[in-house]
Amino acid sequence: MSFFPPALENLIDKFASLPGIGKKSAQRLAFYVLSLPDNEAESFASAIIGAKKSVHCCPICQNLTDGEICSVCGDDRREKGIICVVAEPRDVLSFERSREYKGVYHVLHGVMSPMNHIGPDDLKISELVERVASGGVQEVIMATNPDTEGDTTAMYISRLIKPFGVKVTRLAYGIPVGSNLEFADEATLTRALEGRREI
Amino acid sequence: MSFFPPALENLIDKFASLPGIGKKSAQRLAFYVLSLPDNEAESFASAIIGAKKSVHCCPICQNLTDGEICSVCGDDRREKGIICVVAEPRDVLSFERSREYKGVYHVLHGVMSPMNHIGPDDLKISELVERVASGGVQEVIMATNPDTEGDTTAMYISRLIKPFGVKVTRLAYGIPVGSNLEFADEATLTRALEGRREI
Repeated sequence: MSFFPPALENLIDKFASLPGIGKKSAQRLAFYVLSLPDNEAESFASAIIGAKKSVHCCPICQNLTDGEICSVCGDDRREKGIICVVAEPRDVLSFERSREYKGVYHVLHGVMSPMNHIGPDDLKISELVERVASGGVQEVIMATNPDTEGDTTAMYISRLIKPFGVKVTRLAYGIPVGSNLEFADEATLTRALEGRREI
Repeated sequence: MSFFPPALENLIDKFASLPGIGKKSAQRLAFYVLSLPDNEAESFASAIIGAKKSVHCCPICQNLTDGEICSVCGDDRREKGIICVVAEPRDVLSFERSREYKGVYHVLHGVMSPMNHIGPDDLKISELVERVASGGVQEVIMATNPDTEGDTTAMYISRLIKPFGVKVTRLAYGIPVGSNLEFADEATLTRALEGRREI
């Protein structure tokens, strides 16, 4: 039943098309936008256009950037021979926050997921293979999530790039720092035991 | 720490300014918008502008409309002498869905809330008083939510309009249809008992 004016229904539909936003939330958001002063609503709209226009993928690492190449790839102090492969741009942020990693990144923009019809060709995998093939890479760290899809993607990529003679590693599995053993699931505990190190 | 390109940070901030959207959700939404084809992102932006431009308050009932007056106020079959006073435009939708109500509405666009610094002057109360004062109104049904703020607002308005000699009523409190007595709170049960009717 379409009860609201068409322009409002249209805005509600747009919000409802966003991931994780249901019909009710979309209504709430649309009403909120309508209650904004004209200039704030306009700056919302132009933020969408502006971001779409200026933000694109870095031609080297595929991370999002508004420059010719991204700030990490353009930084001379980063070790270009170590590539950390992540699924999403936000994962780069997580690593950068830790301030420990000195190599560069490669963003896949997703993981392989047969259930959602996402295959290797839908991801930035060929770009990674080209990067490795062009030489100068010593190590590729597979940092996809430790779940079935992330593991599958990591395994698939490692088979593609190992022939080039690079070291392929995977992030360590284990108990998160600061967590409680009581709440660790068995799979994590098993992996933590397997990966135990002398102290 | 600003890590993303400024245009993307800007879009994330815009989403994060929406009610009920936190920083993480705002990131997810912004990434989603970036992943949209250009024309879809543009139609999202123009939906915001379009809704802001064409949707305004009905000069009679203050409900949202894109016409000169809203579809309910413009409908000759509706009884103009009965006004149902609701807090938000979405409440009108709830009543219309029941298909039982044949009167018209008045939308307050909020309720009085001293905690949030919302007083009578921030709501469309003077417009309601004018409507009642101009005559032809027999009954005003206060249909604000059955909570402290809704009750206070209903009480405040009823004092203002009773001098004009109109009947002021309040929606019945009671057990929701289809619910279970076991889960009814005491306040609701007390009100349901008070409002009991012969069958």
